[in-house]
Amino acid sequence: MSGNTLGTLFCVTNFGESHGPAIGCVVDGCPPGLPLEAADIQAELDRRRPGTSRHVTQRQEADQVEILSGVFEGVTTGTPIGLLIRNTDARSKDYANLVDTFRPGHADYSYFKKYGVRDPRGGGRSSARLTAPTVAAGAIAKKWLAANHGVRVRGYMSQLGPVRIPFESWDEVGRNAFYAPNAGIVPELEAFMDELRRDGDSIGARIEIVAENVPAGWGEPLYDRLDADIAHAMMGLNAVKGVSMGAGFESITQRGSQHGDGITPDGFLGNNAGGVLGGISSGQPVTVSLAIKPTSSIRVERQSVDRAGNPTSVQTLGRHDPCVGIRATPIAEALLALVLIDHALRQRGQRG
Amino acid sequence: MSGNTLGTLFCVTNFGESHGPAIGCVVDGCPPGLPLEAADIQAELDRRRPGTSRHVTQRQEADQVEILSGVFEGVTTGTPIGLLIRNTDARSKDYANLVDTFRPGHADYSYFKKYGVRDPRGGGRSSARLTAPTVAAGAIAKKWLAANHGVRVRGYMSQLGPVRIPFESWDEVGRNAFYAPNAGIVPELEAFMDELRRDGDSIGARIEIVAENVPAGWGEPLYDRLDADIAHAMMGLNAVKGVSMGAGFESITQRGSQHGDGITPDGFLGNNAGGVLGGISSGQPVTVSLAIKPTSSIRVERQSVDRAGNPTSVQTLGRHDPCVGIRATPIAEALLALVLIDHALRQRGQRG
Amino acid sequence: MSGNTLGTLFCVTNFGESHGPAIGCVVDGCPPGLPLEAADIQAELDRRRPGTSRHVTQRQEADQVEILSGVFEGVTTGTPIGLLIRNTDARSKDYANLVDTFRPGHADYSYFKKYGVRDPRGGGRSSARLTAPTVAAGAIAKKWLAANHGVRVRGYMSQLGPVRIPFESWDEVGRNAFYAPNAGIVPELEAFMDELRRDGDSIGARIEIVAENVPAGWGEPLYDRLDADIAHAMMGLNAVKGVSMGAGFESITQRGSQHGDGITPDGFLGNNAGGVLGGISSGQPVTVSLAIKPTSSIRVERQSVDRAGNPTSVQTLGRHDPCVGIRATPIAEALLALVLIDHALRQRGQRG
Amino acid sequence: MSGNTLGTLFCVTNFGESHGPAIGCVVDGCPPGLPLEAADIQAELDRRRPGTSRHVTQRQEADQVEILSGVFEGVTTGTPIGLLIRNTDARSKDYANLVDTFRPGHADYSYFKKYGVRDPRGGGRSSARLTAPTVAAGAIAKKWLAANHGVRVRGYMSQLGPVRIPFESWDEVGRNAFYAPNAGIVPELEAFMDELRRDGDSIGARIEIVAENVPAGWGEPLYDRLDADIAHAMMGLNAVKGVSMGAGFESITQRGSQHGDGITPDGFLGNNAGGVLGGISSGQPVTVSLAIKPTSSIRVERQSVDRAGNPTSVQTLGRHDPCVGIRATPIAEALLALVLIDHALRQRGQRG
Repeated sequence: MSGNTLGTLFCVTNFGESHGPAIGCVVDGCPPGLPLEAADIQAELDRRRPGTSRHVTQRQEADQVEILSGVFEGVTTGTPIGLLIRNTDARSKDYANLVDTFRPGHADYSYFKKYGVRDPRGGGRSSARLTAPTVAAGAIAKKWLAANHGVRVRGYMSQLGPVRIPFESWDEVGRNAFYAPNAGIVPELEAFMDELRRDGDSIGARIEIVAENVPAGWGEPLYDRLDADIAHAMMGLNAVKGVSMGAGFESITQRGSQHGDGITPDGFLGNNAGGVLGGISSGQPVTVSLAIKPTSSIRVERQSVDRAGNPTSVQTLGRHDPCVGIRATPIAEALLALVLIDHALRQRGQRG
Repeated sequence: MSGNTLGTLFCVTNFGESHGPAIGCVVDGCPPGLPLEAADIQAELDRRRPGTSRHVTQRQEADQVEILSGVFEGVTTGTPIGLLIRNTDARSKDYANLVDTFRPGHADYSYFKKYGVRDPRGGGRSSARLTAPTVAAGAIAKKWLAANHGVRVRGYMSQLGPVRIPFESWDEVGRNAFYAPNAGIVPELEAFMDELRRDGDSIGARIEIVAENVPAGWGEPLYDRLDADIAHAMMGLNAVKGVSMGAGFESITQRGSQHGDGITPDGFLGNNAGGVLGGISSGQPVTVSLAIKPTSSIRVERQSVDRAGNPTSVQTLGRHDPCVGIRATPIAEALLALVLIDHALRQRGQRG
Repeated sequence: MSGNTLGTLFCVTNFGESHGPAIGCVVDGCPPGLPLEAADIQAELDRRRPGTSRHVTQRQEADQVEILSGVFEGVTTGTPIGLLIRNTDARSKDYANLVDTFRPGHADYSYFKKYGVRDPRGGGRSSARLTAPTVAAGAIAKKWLAANHGVRVRGYMSQLGPVRIPFESWDEVGRNAFYAPNAGIVPELEAFMDELRRDGDSIGARIEIVAENVPAGWGEPLYDRLDADIAHAMMGLNAVKGVSMGAGFESITQRGSQHGDGITPDGFLGNNAGGVLGGISSGQPVTVSLAIKPTSSIRVERQSVDRAGNPTSVQTLGRHDPCVGIRATPIAEALLALVLIDHALRQRGQRG
Repeated sequence: MSGNTLGTLFCVTNFGESHGPAIGCVVDGCPPGLPLEAADIQAELDRRRPGTSRHVTQRQEADQVEILSGVFEGVTTGTPIGLLIRNTDARSKDYANLVDTFRPGHADYSYFKKYGVRDPRGGGRSSARLTAPTVAAGAIAKKWLAANHGVRVRGYMSQLGPVRIPFESWDEVGRNAFYAPNAGIVPELEAFMDELRRDGDSIGARIEIVAENVPAGWGEPLYDRLDADIAHAMMGLNAVKGVSMGAGFESITQRGSQHGDGITPDGFLGNNAGGVLGGISSGQPVTVSLAIKPTSSIRVERQSVDRAGNPTSVQTLGRHDPCVGIRATPIAEALLALVLIDHALRQRGQRG
């Protein structure tokens, strides 16, 4: 495959550029018989949508999804589901100065080196805008997982730059612009972002994603382990520089007697495993952490080169997210759901 | 694919169990014309081999590889390379007590839940022994990458449990049992391991892998990014609980003005990117960090259940690595090489 | 993969139903730098389009293609090319009587058995209308093959039911409604079709496809041979019941001394091989023959069952091709081009 | 994938050369819990084995299979099944004269053009010997299909060169050297072959394969239809030049009213479909016909070129099958079984 398809049995093939006529995807392998309408997908797209607070990009996109195929009389037919989202608020002129220079830390440079040609408008294919079709596909995955296995996939921000966000309640997550599970810390987050925006700079973040009720037995070792496929999906998300499961990097200093989650007739005594043992789900909640870098599209001036290799400096105008981690939560949820449904179907194929 | 094949154009299909007659793999997609003999592969297998110091498992396996196909008169023919390693020192009786119980933190439990049947001898399919064929395949990848692109893939241990290991020199890495790039710290590591062994416990570790001279342009966004495929391969390695690129989890607290590596006519001013921008190699060294958990096969007694779900306790006898991180370095190098060659060939296919 | 993607490096993912809002595909893996505009694709779509003569279905579809992505300033960027074709002339009410019965010889029955639910309007997903996106993708493949290797892919009808059509000239093929390479026989074909239409029946046909200037060396044995992948693509085309290469079924009665094409410094002495030896292109023209069955959508009344399994009879109204073989020529050309470009890229990946 | 793997969920990865140390395969995706021992596989290998009559190659190979993994206590575990067959009767010196010349009609030429290097001994990778691992894998598929769905896959020869072999009884097939379903015609076949051998020539054949009890619903349109995947597998078998389903090339002259198999509450009224409608199994027997060319390894002298392109003539010594169609029956059965199990598992994954 050529890199734009995710999954083995539940396959999402993504297309589009930030400033082209449209973006979208084809979801191939959704089992037949799932009730599905555009509103199911729209709800998730709206969570990812730009322009919803002053802390994210001010680009205004309705991100209205059209179901082109695969659904008949409100039910999936088992055939490919084509999803289309028109781009409506592209301001390509903002990018004129980027045609010939490369933003430090941005895909500008590597895309040019790879393809020899690129669409520079809004980051073209490398734009985080291309996560919208992923979210749309993930909405279908979420619905199927919930309906068939009671699986619930949720996420939240656990750190914004230097500010750690203690988990208080899932209920808070949807009530603020940051997906923070803690109401008390929101003013601090807002103040931090406001200052950052004045500086024309950006910041990293940490996101946690949890899937509950995942049955034991999903994952295909040796190589396509559940955690391996989760890592693949998550590291493939724009700006992610680290992925961990369960205890993650804390495992380095743990002893085996401490790390291994004891088992009782009533379940596990802990979840250092993050829900995966030997690459196969264990029945514990699947827990994933993501390290998200600060975006490279900032107003601060930096050292770079032009296409001819001559030194230059670059500043990014246009409309950008000062913290891409903020909108990453619904996207990472979608990715986890996509990996889970794929392994659910693979396990059904293998075990019946 | 059913989970035991790694790669799209350079494909490794792995088979075997810890205590079965043999383990091995088929390498499909190696370009023709590469000089190759068993000794090239054996050298890497010997780096991973058990029983080479008192700090690793005392199982004695020569891990002698036989090339079954794909090489004619010392040169690869472009056809599949079959590699076979016979198991010679399996002591299956050590595992009698594990047939009906599950080690906390071990794949015992999840394999049983997935397949309904399993080979419990030595961990069966979930054993780290199955990394040997991966290392064998990686040796071929390393040789091709070096010959065709001057790529060099190396790794070292940067932390053993609580002991951080400052990088001093690549030259030291091969001179001690830990792959530590620092001679002065070796006595401390040895003392730590000796005490751990007396306790019958195990410990986590952190490993760094670096690939130098990777050309810009490798990686297939949107989903099969170079870093995504690296994360997939690495998270699929036994005991890995976290994977990061470049600045990794440090990116969380960085600002964009600090994280984005400036570009000059003479190259990049840093490597927070870890050699990957937008999922495509940038020409910087590719740097990967792994968090490795402490193994679950320890003598310390722990709480578990038997196959019927009744409470029991479990202790692991047999021969085990108290720190699987020690032998992880050559394996992780192999995995990085396998991902790199796959993307090298994909890029050749796309760009010619 | 879930069945709706064709190719390994040049991948076409197809979506849509006959009477849904739109059909289309995503072409992933097209090399960057190919000049491409909608008109290149439209030209091939127009050759496949319905309603162009009285001998094909009278459904009026402009089959206007929109390029949604992957092309910037008239040149492919190496990123996925999204192609969209709106359905405009669907008359779904014609199919009301098919919701509960199955046409003998039609996918109605097997789709229902497979999915338990189906879109019956116009054959839904099983409609030959879904070959339009394949033709669109094939147009890109043809253009790349011509530009990079001088490959020319052409086809013609060699038999319409009982009427054999002797090959006279490629020039004639585009001048009649049948893709017949013989002007003299056209009146006989027209008379045959007119009578058939009066009978409300349908007829089979035989199609020949030829690719010239294919370099030696394309194809990946053991299993993904060039001819194997051609057979896969062609047998996957609606109504095809047989595929052969070169001498095909005539090979049964040939002796080896007669079948093997002698080789001289000036080339091969014949082409019984059909351009493929051991699954790899030989440099001879690639020649493929297709046996196409008569369509099952006819007015003649036939014996069938309803969804409950009770006996019934069925007649097909609506607008249909009395000989699907007529429009098969441009589609089969597209399929051959798609297989060829995929193997061209695979060979580039393997050999550089 | 790089061409040596067949299947999506039940995957066979084949390795080896005719005169290398060993041949074999890895079967990945076999469901757990299937009773399996080497004897199950050996029985099918013995049907394909060379040297069993004077009408096939006189090479003596025991084709003894060793199961290396994936089976524990006589039952499959769901992990990869490694299968190994040592080569024991290779006479490589017979091929000295082929190092520098190419047999007309043989893969010699195309392999050299593709890889630039090849193993010429016994045809190397292009040898029909590599069908042995396919047969071994097929034995597992057959056993699973029979146990889980009562599917029975059988084949026979229906034509040997000019001699048509009327079907009389399945019982006869195993009682003669030709897989002929007709005892009376065997003397004619023997006489034909004896004369052919005296001439040092070879002959084509036609084979029929039938799978009974295939449930309706297997196959993944649009592209990975059941018949498309059958055509891929069969056209990938050495010497096959044509593949057809059901009425096959007879469909060309049929009318729709004649071709479409009527449906009654008691089943279908015919089987022109060959068991596949719209790419999905219909519940009718799956019937496949193969056209097999005469082998190119003959004693008759023919015109060719050497590696430098100079004219020469070539005769093939060594031990060869004068009619590769004779041993093709068990191989084609294996291939059909492999495609069927793959789609059985895919359907389970999609429908549960």
